[in-house]
Amino acid sequence: MERTKIAQIFADQEHFGGREVRISGWARTIRDMKTFGFIELNDGSCLKNLQVVMEAAALSNYKEIAGQNVGAALTVAGTVVLTPGAKQPLEVKAASITVEGPSAPEYPLQKKRHSVEYLRTIQHLRPRTNLFSATFRVRSVAAHAIHTFFQERGFVYVHTPIITASDCEGAGEMFRVTTLDLDNVPKTGDGAVDYTQDFFGKPANLTVSGQLNAENFAMAFGDVYTFGPTFRAEKSNTTRHAAEFWMIEPEMAFCDLAGDMDVAEAMIKFIIRTVLEKCPDEINFFNSFVDKGLKERLEHVASSDFGRVSYTEAIELLKQSGHKFDYPVDWGCDLQTEHERYLTEQVFQKPVFVTDYPQEIKAFYMRLNDDGRTVAAADCLVPGIGEIIGGSQREERLDVLERRIRELGMDPQDYWWYLDLRRYGGCRHAGFGLGFERMVMYLTGVGNIRDVLPHPRTVGNAEF
Amino acid sequence: MERTKIAQIFADQEHFGGREVRISGWARTIRDMKTFGFIELNDGSCLKNLQVVMEAAALSNYKEIAGQNVGAALTVAGTVVLTPGAKQPLEVKAASITVEGPSAPEYPLQKKRHSVEYLRTIQHLRPRTNLFSATFRVRSVAAHAIHTFFQERGFVYVHTPIITASDCEGAGEMFRVTTLDLDNVPKTGDGAVDYTQDFFGKPANLTVSGQLNAENFAMAFGDVYTFGPTFRAEKSNTTRHAAEFWMIEPEMAFCDLAGDMDVAEAMIKFIIRTVLEKCPDEINFFNSFVDKGLKERLEHVASSDFGRVSYTEAIELLKQSGHKFDYPVDWGCDLQTEHERYLTEQVFQKPVFVTDYPQEIKAFYMRLNDDGRTVAAADCLVPGIGEIIGGSQREERLDVLERRIRELGMDPQDYWWYLDLRRYGGCRHAGFGLGFERMVMYLTGVGNIRDVLPHPRTVGNAEF
Repeated sequence: MERTKIAQIFADQEHFGGREVRISGWARTIRDMKTFGFIELNDGSCLKNLQVVMEAAALSNYKEIAGQNVGAALTVAGTVVLTPGAKQPLEVKAASITVEGPSAPEYPLQKKRHSVEYLRTIQHLRPRTNLFSATFRVRSVAAHAIHTFFQERGFVYVHTPIITASDCEGAGEMFRVTTLDLDNVPKTGDGAVDYTQDFFGKPANLTVSGQLNAENFAMAFGDVYTFGPTFRAEKSNTTRHAAEFWMIEPEMAFCDLAGDMDVAEAMIKFIIRTVLEKCPDEINFFNSFVDKGLKERLEHVASSDFGRVSYTEAIELLKQSGHKFDYPVDWGCDLQTEHERYLTEQVFQKPVFVTDYPQEIKAFYMRLNDDGRTVAAADCLVPGIGEIIGGSQREERLDVLERRIRELGMDPQDYWWYLDLRRYGGCRHAGFGLGFERMVMYLTGVGNIRDVLPHPRTVGNAEF
Repeated sequence: MERTKIAQIFADQEHFGGREVRISGWARTIRDMKTFGFIELNDGSCLKNLQVVMEAAALSNYKEIAGQNVGAALTVAGTVVLTPGAKQPLEVKAASITVEGPSAPEYPLQKKRHSVEYLRTIQHLRPRTNLFSATFRVRSVAAHAIHTFFQERGFVYVHTPIITASDCEGAGEMFRVTTLDLDNVPKTGDGAVDYTQDFFGKPANLTVSGQLNAENFAMAFGDVYTFGPTFRAEKSNTTRHAAEFWMIEPEMAFCDLAGDMDVAEAMIKFIIRTVLEKCPDEINFFNSFVDKGLKERLEHVASSDFGRVSYTEAIELLKQSGHKFDYPVDWGCDLQTEHERYLTEQVFQKPVFVTDYPQEIKAFYMRLNDDGRTVAAADCLVPGIGEIIGGSQREERLDVLERRIRELGMDPQDYWWYLDLRRYGGCRHAGFGLGFERMVMYLTGVGNIRDVLPHPRTVGNAEF
């Protein structure tokens, strides 16, 4: 008999009621009442366990099965019995049970609740808990929703490079990638590292952003997006930063800042709606055990029109609020998370785009506004998190861009190909970056980035 | 007026015939006949150009437009005119044309055909050529097909880590990832590199495979897959190897080698069918200009049952063939590409899985067969390429796996979490790896991996 997944049985109860099935999964609990017993079986196809009823009289190996430890892998053949009115809507009455693989008494995931800190030390097993099962299923569904959103709109998915020899974006500290022997680094005559002996013949790093490369492709395909890992070697030890994380970076030709915000807003709503639709059990779980306001907040965001306010107006709103902030608020300052959250949670009470930031606090490639002091940037702030998206219209004017590069003490020669895009059919274009882990944290209410990454990499941590 | 993409107009000609549209794109050619002229406009939404007809009498800026250089970004407002019987099925009669961004006379992509070698030096512009436009669109469609295939079957997408502190798989040379100052590497008292000062507190590398981590998740979710970048620091300079490439690695609990091959075969067919359906223009282009037999071969593969033959039988078939190979064929030898291609192209004339290889030439984690000398591996060989997929059933027996690790001189302690999976509810499971670039080469007929990667990284090359 073909294996049936537990999710299928719950999804189509009418069909399966009375039918024979074969299921395989892991025992979450085993209760032995001597003449009969119950097994809660989970196969990872959904959050729900399947209750298996076994009778000593019907199973020749009842004692072997009843004596299994939690975590054992079992295959059960039996009949689905619908149990309307009972705690669970159905159960399986076992005709036979075989042990695929036993577990051990010291199995680290016993029925009691474990702290997330402890579970981080057993990252290979934590996906078997409800919390992480739900989190990583939502992560997967959200990732696919993002691909679907862009593919349905004709965007081309581009795998921008992970290893890069340019440090163009200056978005953060970088990891060096090398095949040089660190025990004995080769040096040139004047004592410098001899990178001609390195794999790429020059210093190479892990990318901090695929944006500049994405622009290459937007100038050919019109609409493109990236979805890949990015890296920061900053030794910040916070709940929101990891050294390795995934980013989505759409880039659109013939698009201005307003169009950029339209796409970002539609994308966030699409991700939320997809997860609400495909992961109702997971969202209910998070809403009960992680964040009581989660479901209401997600539904609210999915149906709100996002606010839009200029940085200049936002500064005024913060100043007028009378609220006492840890960091002072003045035109020209970078918005801190406390400012961002106050704007989205207190002032707008919904997601809000803050636009047109001072040029000094934003990246060199953002388009200079006519006022000569702000740039066409738009950060999307959401309740509970703060900034979730950073976007901008890019500077398409060759002379303005070159001037800005020089002003910042950078060498236009290092950007020859990026400037070429403005020499040969440059056009209005815009894009944004979504930090995928922040999105998953937002969707689940999970508060620490270490708990939404399968195997998080942070300062001092690269286990598993 | 909203911008319409050229792909939409070609896809729905009846609807657009006679309608006014606004389109934006880049001029591939501009022909000026003084009183009228033609522009071939491409916006990257499809391979096709749109012919724009302009008349000097109708356009106040006719001279400006007619004088533009190839590559200029233009926005055209005009009426779609269906032209049945003409070379192209429709054209747009321009009412107005504006220059979004001019190009320059020295624009490197003139109408003539350029060598792929030259185009690799202008990777930021090559997506604007038909060859690369078609290749990267197929790449995007194939990537999405892979996600769709697995998501529809309930697989969970897992982002296994890129940076790893374990060198477990031994699949190849690794890149070191570090934040140590290479000019002045810190040393311990006994002169060794002091990795406690490195970012992760220990040596870290770029992953060569996500498989071992994927197994962690398969033992919780049942069916999972990865799709991410992997790395090899081997200084091989071939048309089939890159230092950075993308891999898909499904891993399935309660699945044996036969089930593994079933999924691999269904996946390859699904990818091919999706690309044939969604990219007919691209496939016709490749079939005409890159590989005359491509379309027939793809259609054949999509409708064939893949062959299955044991390594032992395959060796016999090769020996009996009478064909003279550069590398000798004997039981125990690793199959070379010439052997693989002979099997799939000459013997089977379709894709074939070769199974049950000698233990010595395969990885430590593959399940030992009852004969005690072969392992439950399955490589999928396809005509024109050779190996495209490598898979196996994994060794789930703790004692057998530990013994194998020791036999190979490795330390079981380094694999504590991988062995834990066998301690706590281990079960039959299997998986495979698909090299994504090989798949794209197979789908397009493009013969060099450097031309299917947006910005390829190979020995000495990390430009752009």
